[in-house]
Amino acid sequence: MSAVPRSGDNTAPPLATTVAIVGCRDSQTTSRDDLVAIEEPLEINVLLNPESGAREADPSFTLSITMRSPGEDRALATGFLFTEGIIHSLEDLNEIRTPNPAVGKYQLKNTIQCSLNPNISFDYKRFQRYFYTNSSCGVCGKTSINALSLIHKPQLTPDHPKIGSKLMRSLPQCLASDQPHYQQTGGLHGAALFSPDGTLISLQEDIGRHNAVDKVIGSELLAGRASFDNLILLLSGRAGFELIQKALAADIPVVASIGAPTSLAIDMAKEHGMTLIGFLSGSGFNIYSGRERIED
Amino acid sequence: MSAVPRSGDNTAPPLATTVAIVGCRDSQTTSRDDLVAIEEPLEINVLLNPESGAREADPSFTLSITMRSPGEDRALATGFLFTEGIIHSLEDLNEIRTPNPAVGKYQLKNTIQCSLNPNISFDYKRFQRYFYTNSSCGVCGKTSINALSLIHKPQLTPDHPKIGSKLMRSLPQCLASDQPHYQQTGGLHGAALFSPDGTLISLQEDIGRHNAVDKVIGSELLAGRASFDNLILLLSGRAGFELIQKALAADIPVVASIGAPTSLAIDMAKEHGMTLIGFLSGSGFNIYSGRERIED
Repeated sequence: MSAVPRSGDNTAPPLATTVAIVGCRDSQTTSRDDLVAIEEPLEINVLLNPESGAREADPSFTLSITMRSPGEDRALATGFLFTEGIIHSLEDLNEIRTPNPAVGKYQLKNTIQCSLNPNISFDYKRFQRYFYTNSSCGVCGKTSINALSLIHKPQLTPDHPKIGSKLMRSLPQCLASDQPHYQQTGGLHGAALFSPDGTLISLQEDIGRHNAVDKVIGSELLAGRASFDNLILLLSGRAGFELIQKALAADIPVVASIGAPTSLAIDMAKEHGMTLIGFLSGSGFNIYSGRERIED
Repeated sequence: MSAVPRSGDNTAPPLATTVAIVGCRDSQTTSRDDLVAIEEPLEINVLLNPESGAREADPSFTLSITMRSPGEDRALATGFLFTEGIIHSLEDLNEIRTPNPAVGKYQLKNTIQCSLNPNISFDYKRFQRYFYTNSSCGVCGKTSINALSLIHKPQLTPDHPKIGSKLMRSLPQCLASDQPHYQQTGGLHGAALFSPDGTLISLQEDIGRHNAVDKVIGSELLAGRASFDNLILLLSGRAGFELIQKALAADIPVVASIGAPTSLAIDMAKEHGMTLIGFLSGSGFNIYSGRERIED
């Protein structure tokens, strides 16, 4: 395998690599090179304050190990902390560092350390036992929806923003033309933020759909954005509970997916007044919740 | 929403539900019913022995909460314990119970309790800190691949089984015709096991691709299968590290996916001598590893 630099940016880690494969078409076999999406783990650590209840000998807490596409790691970590309700703005984040040396065949820094503002009390036990403490009543979709309110109460403005259905139908084309690595590898999810007039604000690709959402939200936070309550989040795949939870943590009022939504995603969107669109294409879409924001 | 029973089995929980939607096609909007995949959490608990190092006041340990399609929960829990290396055969599992009452709008039993054979010492600390203990050298793909060997050393027979390329190309058609809920909802992943002569052994659908793999392996374990070392695992989507790890835990020698594999999935397949096929369709496929098992 040899890593392929991203076009136009030789300092960013590569998203794809070439591998030698055997292609079989009908009864012909040919040896050739193919591009595949790079997958590497990222360990997100939180540096804890002595006051926060951590073990003194272990001031750093492993919050998550996610299998991700390399690059935009600061955006991924920032977005993850934000959409999981651990930080509520960029001010809550003191510093992000990648202290360990680069490792592995792609020489990547696969550990990222986030130090929180001392004013933030991060209850790592609550995070660790997040679901567990809610399971005494019998875990179910309703429990899951209510659990979000323990972290963040979404504040969506009813009827706002308004989006024309023609504009909505035009969004997948933007995703297709600006998602180069998916076209190369067939192995990446895309997530994009649009303004209500259809302007593409940010697009991120990742092998994990949840990472793509964290990266697109995190990159905007790092760029100084304070509010997402006027934006459209476009997902290249399906919309499940966890992606809607992340969008609601950012107060995003409209989520549109190219694929299908699940029952719990729809329940959650309805509960919090979010507009949820599924099966979005150039010729149409389905509205599962929040029709009032879509204009003819 | 109203739940839709699975065809032919009124006792199994429904996989899909009808929701009222607004469909927008070109400039026409129509209100109609649509089928969506049901998503509900399943909490998998392990009952611990006093000897196993658990806190005495808390003999049950929450191993995982996964968002899943309802149904086949015993298969899902059994498969999860097996593919995560906690049990190595059905004999290691004493009992599976769903002790809590049915909850939520679909009246599902969303908690499942697994009691392990007393001979099995389940080191819950190792599981909880699985990656954490490996991160001192800097977490990377190689670390992730090596970590598998701590759980289970895959034992694949070289050159076995042999599979004709024409037979391989015929498999997606079986998946398409036997995956009814995907066709209804567009929201489910499928995983299927085939014998080397192309006979469909088992197929499972789930909103989570890892759940579909756990269910298809778990259902075969529950049906009495002791070995998977002669089978083909077919995946409806993409093949990433975690799915290959699960297949290797079951000693499955051939994995074929309709979508793309990742770099780490390919590395892992090569490391352990597994045949990995991607972009499988009726007209062809790519071989990323283990060409010796594929015959013209």
